[in-house]
Amino acid sequence: MRILGIDPGLRLTGYGVIDFTSIRRSQVIDAGVVRLKTTASVAQRLVELEAALEQIITEHQPQIVAVEQLYAHYAHPRTAIIMGHARGVILLVAARHDCQLQELAANRIKQAVAGHGHAAKLQMQRAVQSIWNLPQLPQPPDVADALAIAYACGLDKATNRTVTKSTRTRRT
Amino acid sequence: MRILGIDPGLRLTGYGVIDFTSIRRSQVIDAGVVRLKTTASVAQRLVELEAALEQIITEHQPQIVAVEQLYAHYAHPRTAIIMGHARGVILLVAARHDCQLQELAANRIKQAVAGHGHAAKLQMQRAVQSIWNLPQLPQPPDVADALAIAYACGLDKATNRTVTKSTRTRRT
Repeated sequence: MRILGIDPGLRLTGYGVIDFTSIRRSQVIDAGVVRLKTTASVAQRLVELEAALEQIITEHQPQIVAVEQLYAHYAHPRTAIIMGHARGVILLVAARHDCQLQELAANRIKQAVAGHGHAAKLQMQRAVQSIWNLPQLPQPPDVADALAIAYACGLDKATNRTVTKSTRTRRT
Repeated sequence: MRILGIDPGLRLTGYGVIDFTSIRRSQVIDAGVVRLKTTASVAQRLVELEAALEQIITEHQPQIVAVEQLYAHYAHPRTAIIMGHARGVILLVAARHDCQLQELAANRIKQAVAGHGHAAKLQMQRAVQSIWNLPQLPQPPDVADALAIAYACGLDKATNRTVTKSTRTRRT
């Protein structure tokens, strides 16, 4: 099962493509960030984001695109809405390619990857590095977050969304 | 100057295309709503919205696309973010067609059209009807809002964004 995890933003959008075979078997196919020029207008950045996503999805043909669920409350609504612009473009491109969309709660992702729902950025990076024995800490954190979303999605799919402690073991 | 005003939403997106020649001379070219199936997923609705906007912009070739500015605070951040998804797709399609994007504050739009910054929905509909002597009240309110955005944008352009009481006179 090929999963593309995306952590949307209008400065950096992290992405991670994994092949998830089972809880004990998954591999990273591609991961990185789409960097958008902060000097460009939001509209222009959305055009660039769309082009980058088109390329990633066309190249890797994921069956599933996984993103973080929206919360009910945001500390910075305006920033969240700008993020919503990027998220809208992601959903659009995913739907255009008939990818199945999976939305995962933030604490669910952290729990699946780092073992508890309130893991900090660095803990998430270390957990993602450990899952796949990556030679380096995934940088920037947006890459780790995108891979974490993809991994948590695979785990949820493999376990029918019921994840117990025993299945939470991290694995290659 | 051809202006497309858009009032984004994932249920109804209002649009209004006007030709704005001067404060005393403008006409409605097209106006309506894009109705999105609420039974469809958000992603699927974004695909439909994109297709509808592509059609409107290709048909009418506006130089300017005008939308409401984002606020700093929202009573319902989650709803606002969903709106942000639609807004993202609108900005994307506008930029793709090299339309100039204009963002207008909500109270500026109301002031320009209805004469004060806190006009209610029905007042806005009546004001829009009166500007162009429309035979009927524009329905649903989303159509009136979109036409109001386009009109306020034309007014701002015509007056270099400085609108005094005397220029606020409504007219065909």
